[in-house]
Amino acid sequence: MQTKTPVAVLGGTGLVGQRLVQLLANHPWFEIREIGASERSAGKSYRDAVAWKLPTPLPAAAAQLTVKPVDPGQITAPVVFSALDAAVADVVEVLFAQDGRAVISNARSHRMAADVPLLVPEINASHLGVLAAQRQRQGGNGFIVTNPNCSVIGLCLALAPLVRERRLQRMVVTTLQAASGAGYPGVPALDLIDNVIPFIGGEEEKLEIEPQKIFGTVRDGRIEAVELLVSAHVHRVPVSDGHTLAVSAAFDRAVTPEQAESWMREFRAEPQSRSLPSAPDPAIVVLNEPDRPQPRLDRMAGGGMAVVVSKLRVCPVLGLKFEVLSHNTVRGAAGGTILIAELLKAEGLLP
Amino acid sequence: MQTKTPVAVLGGTGLVGQRLVQLLANHPWFEIREIGASERSAGKSYRDAVAWKLPTPLPAAAAQLTVKPVDPGQITAPVVFSALDAAVADVVEVLFAQDGRAVISNARSHRMAADVPLLVPEINASHLGVLAAQRQRQGGNGFIVTNPNCSVIGLCLALAPLVRERRLQRMVVTTLQAASGAGYPGVPALDLIDNVIPFIGGEEEKLEIEPQKIFGTVRDGRIEAVELLVSAHVHRVPVSDGHTLAVSAAFDRAVTPEQAESWMREFRAEPQSRSLPSAPDPAIVVLNEPDRPQPRLDRMAGGGMAVVVSKLRVCPVLGLKFEVLSHNTVRGAAGGTILIAELLKAEGLLP
Amino acid sequence: MQTKTPVAVLGGTGLVGQRLVQLLANHPWFEIREIGASERSAGKSYRDAVAWKLPTPLPAAAAQLTVKPVDPGQITAPVVFSALDAAVADVVEVLFAQDGRAVISNARSHRMAADVPLLVPEINASHLGVLAAQRQRQGGNGFIVTNPNCSVIGLCLALAPLVRERRLQRMVVTTLQAASGAGYPGVPALDLIDNVIPFIGGEEEKLEIEPQKIFGTVRDGRIEAVELLVSAHVHRVPVSDGHTLAVSAAFDRAVTPEQAESWMREFRAEPQSRSLPSAPDPAIVVLNEPDRPQPRLDRMAGGGMAVVVSKLRVCPVLGLKFEVLSHNTVRGAAGGTILIAELLKAEGLLP
Amino acid sequence: MQTKTPVAVLGGTGLVGQRLVQLLANHPWFEIREIGASERSAGKSYRDAVAWKLPTPLPAAAAQLTVKPVDPGQITAPVVFSALDAAVADVVEVLFAQDGRAVISNARSHRMAADVPLLVPEINASHLGVLAAQRQRQGGNGFIVTNPNCSVIGLCLALAPLVRERRLQRMVVTTLQAASGAGYPGVPALDLIDNVIPFIGGEEEKLEIEPQKIFGTVRDGRIEAVELLVSAHVHRVPVSDGHTLAVSAAFDRAVTPEQAESWMREFRAEPQSRSLPSAPDPAIVVLNEPDRPQPRLDRMAGGGMAVVVSKLRVCPVLGLKFEVLSHNTVRGAAGGTILIAELLKAEGLLP
Repeated sequence: MQTKTPVAVLGGTGLVGQRLVQLLANHPWFEIREIGASERSAGKSYRDAVAWKLPTPLPAAAAQLTVKPVDPGQITAPVVFSALDAAVADVVEVLFAQDGRAVISNARSHRMAADVPLLVPEINASHLGVLAAQRQRQGGNGFIVTNPNCSVIGLCLALAPLVRERRLQRMVVTTLQAASGAGYPGVPALDLIDNVIPFIGGEEEKLEIEPQKIFGTVRDGRIEAVELLVSAHVHRVPVSDGHTLAVSAAFDRAVTPEQAESWMREFRAEPQSRSLPSAPDPAIVVLNEPDRPQPRLDRMAGGGMAVVVSKLRVCPVLGLKFEVLSHNTVRGAAGGTILIAELLKAEGLLP
Repeated sequence: MQTKTPVAVLGGTGLVGQRLVQLLANHPWFEIREIGASERSAGKSYRDAVAWKLPTPLPAAAAQLTVKPVDPGQITAPVVFSALDAAVADVVEVLFAQDGRAVISNARSHRMAADVPLLVPEINASHLGVLAAQRQRQGGNGFIVTNPNCSVIGLCLALAPLVRERRLQRMVVTTLQAASGAGYPGVPALDLIDNVIPFIGGEEEKLEIEPQKIFGTVRDGRIEAVELLVSAHVHRVPVSDGHTLAVSAAFDRAVTPEQAESWMREFRAEPQSRSLPSAPDPAIVVLNEPDRPQPRLDRMAGGGMAVVVSKLRVCPVLGLKFEVLSHNTVRGAAGGTILIAELLKAEGLLP
Repeated sequence: MQTKTPVAVLGGTGLVGQRLVQLLANHPWFEIREIGASERSAGKSYRDAVAWKLPTPLPAAAAQLTVKPVDPGQITAPVVFSALDAAVADVVEVLFAQDGRAVISNARSHRMAADVPLLVPEINASHLGVLAAQRQRQGGNGFIVTNPNCSVIGLCLALAPLVRERRLQRMVVTTLQAASGAGYPGVPALDLIDNVIPFIGGEEEKLEIEPQKIFGTVRDGRIEAVELLVSAHVHRVPVSDGHTLAVSAAFDRAVTPEQAESWMREFRAEPQSRSLPSAPDPAIVVLNEPDRPQPRLDRMAGGGMAVVVSKLRVCPVLGLKFEVLSHNTVRGAAGGTILIAELLKAEGLLP
Repeated sequence: MQTKTPVAVLGGTGLVGQRLVQLLANHPWFEIREIGASERSAGKSYRDAVAWKLPTPLPAAAAQLTVKPVDPGQITAPVVFSALDAAVADVVEVLFAQDGRAVISNARSHRMAADVPLLVPEINASHLGVLAAQRQRQGGNGFIVTNPNCSVIGLCLALAPLVRERRLQRMVVTTLQAASGAGYPGVPALDLIDNVIPFIGGEEEKLEIEPQKIFGTVRDGRIEAVELLVSAHVHRVPVSDGHTLAVSAAFDRAVTPEQAESWMREFRAEPQSRSLPSAPDPAIVVLNEPDRPQPRLDRMAGGGMAVVVSKLRVCPVLGLKFEVLSHNTVRGAAGGTILIAELLKAEGLLP
């Protein structure tokens, strides 16, 4: 691993793109060689093209890259992180994959295709088994792997240790989501001063469907969804980063809060056992204070890559309930795609 | 109804007390004659004793009242609104009742006593039937009637039309509650800047228990709880006024969102049919926008006395789900107790 | 005044347009007959065209108006309130004036023209004297009168009683401005969560120049600026409505805080003496609490039309200092233009 | 410097105390051996006594210390960081100094005593020359050195390069201060939701007086204040950390924005030239973006120890104006006192 794998960031000027640039600076395995963005930005230096919104300085190396159009003819890196809008990602990610690139995408465009892994490395690394089928369908030597929705990742990661022990059947999930999840400019300030908004377009559907695939199984080159009923209520709240979720869940056999806590505390998975550079360890931080997790205090647990769980208790209706927090632009987006890339690299699927 | 009934406000300097003073100014039936508060305030003019936190001016008549101690020997009004802390209300409210006063209380102290009505006038006016038993137990000619927890009122009022038609069996309720619910000073600003707190002491218990009593029935001078499983997840969010609730509910027979909407829109109850001065009409405002209700825009519906419901839809887990907003210090506290007093007056239970 | 003057609102779907629609509903003298907006909205009902952002319901009469393009050929009302963007107002307002309409504008486009009044009715009603010159220059029988910048109005109104008694020479003004001043969508939420922004495009210039004209005098059909040095520092803060200003001012002769308070408390001007429907009385509310004014508590003073002043004290550098609050979309925009229209009507300048 | 100097933190459970514990963990020169707090906390482990409010984990070593009373008989460390309330610091700090300890204090109690340095290490290290006089007056072998008010430090540090070149005569300073400046619980959330408060007790006085001493000179064992007129307007805003200041300043000879920028960029002082561990380098970060500094993005510049300046421009009234941001609990409190201790150590004034 002496020379770093060259990577490109597509959609590099948006909030998730900025997080990718931030987190990939000084990455031990990857090096940003190219940044792609819309025609409006192409040709400018990244420093001039981006309205940098992170509290750490713009990394110097990325700052001087010239932004390119998101075109496989112009971007040459073999590994491509996509933070593109779905409308663009629909077509562009396929073009890159057909051109032989490994595309790790944060866009929703291809998440639900049966031969496209919707990957949480701690949960369903085995879903990479569908890539052969995907290559065949798509043509070309590349592939697309997708990162789930930013709320879904935290939810599924918190549930993963329980799903190892029991069959998860039903859940009611209510979210309190950060403004950064909507990108920039995103939500108008007037809508989040002294206010909450009980709506995020398409979010409840993602929360209800994506977990079925993430916890699904591979059969004949296809990922088959697990049977799982999810009911989501979503809200946007005046928080910059960090999605909070209140979860009530029913399993095939009872899970006590004590069991859940113990399984969560002991949870380790491939990213941890392989010591992937971005893998949080522990992946799940369990707190015992009843007034936690809190976004301002806990979102950076494990460098923003861990999920934080607290308030494990009996749910009189569904059996078990608890509170989850995860950083939506780190674990839920940029950091999540980087961890996927690290897993791919460790699996020998990247140059 | 030519002369107004003299009333006293106990705990008049707190946030709920201030709302009582605000809402009772110019009330057609009641007139504040006395304000009671802690020893520290007693003897001062109300203007000097109170740190007025409402965006309307301190009513002139109340401003010049001299604050009295919360002692039935010094406060003479036959009707007493209590916004006392539970620790004080425990004893003091009983003393007033034994001394012949009608006590309408916002404190939690006596809410769960079987012969004390926990009243939402639109729902369980019939629970006043236990007052005779209460008088007998307590001694004296007065009585205590209580106003439910500020989150519970909005929840139950929204459900009331459905409970008329179906047997409610189970619900999962997640709240996003305003800072004013904690009184003043209440929650520190540092805890609600870029943050939410998944904890409010005792609140989940109230949400899980009080609805059982509110929807209960009177038998032999006692209110018997209905069978009803409630699971609550509570949060404090950076909102000044207005509690938002995400509700998933299961009934004995299916309720479609269309049925629910129609029952809610048509809902009228005693306060509306008797045209009580503070009764909102409609009691339930149903919105069709998917991004509503919002605290800043909707909390003052019906003068803060209506609940606002939107997003009625199928819950894949429990059957029906929707979003509720109600003003926690108006409908959920001061206004709620005033509406109770109006019902009592209309029933001939007040002088 | 038996039949109301028909008026049109141009730019009716924006935040200031919405405030105009709100404040003109049930106005005793004016009646909204037409609403103009961009091509995208034209042809729709106002209800469908507007994303209503005010906490009071959309007025029913306005809701059913069909939005028209902002074209004097299609809008027939003799009085036109303009809440247009400056880019559109530049040309359109002149077209309406040339077509004989009275245009009362909130846009900055024509504010600094020497024959266009920049009107705060309590201060410079006499500037209407330039309208003859304006008609002559512009052609047509109509005219344009402008409302100052939202921060400038509060500042100048607070200073008006002092300017009657002394010559104002220099001031340093620092603002803490509400998000609504940027319109909708305006400032992104991410920029105002746990943050303030020390920048509002063009605002410092307006604060430094507009007061010179407002306190100026009419000579030969032109408004001549007064000599007055203003230094402004502007900030956007996480407040929905209400601009706060910290003012240090130097006069030709010393003004004690006591004198200033007394002059402010006694201040009455034409809008008050003529009892214009929207005129606040008092125009300046002086508070003695050192922790006031506060946007959430004080912005609705005088229905949002008064300015609130507190903390009058000696400035060791410039002589006098104090704090001012005014409601930026009521007094500072929609309400201000309505008060101007009322003054024009009272002066016989409107049909 | 092989063994670290043992230090104690007095007032360790408050917000500034927590920052001290955070910043002293892993400090190269100092090691926390003792934590002192009120009687209520004494005897508990620090972990149990503190309500930890920082987004990094409670340092393990400090967590297990047993909290002691703030009594020189029980606390033995030769160096004492005081984050005590002024009411306690008044007496206690003197007792520690008389007992031979070096007290570096964040309290206001002794700041204005003529023989107590009010130290910003980049500005007035020479003021340590009064310590001999202080020892003589106070008795004992120890001494007190104080850290200025949290707003004053940022203000003076930004001005320091200009004061080297010109005589500063007058300034108008308006602050937008973070909630953490009031400690915990501090400001109630209700006061900072959709609101700003134009008041912080005693703050304007500190801003008007402390700079006179900081820029003063030592004569005959006393620090003599410089002639300097400061006028302050203070505000509390909904920001967690980071005080923003808008400054207009007059010097004996004109300073152009370009000169100011160049002097600020080149500014280095003793902490930088001696490479003190907590010294930011540069001490002043000058940004050229007109919408900066912003608390959320810039407060952690230089690890929270640098001040950030932007918007240098001509002030029409006083000559020069600009915007300053500094982290109020790092540079403005805990970090500032640590930098003072580092200077003392480098000067041989600590064991």
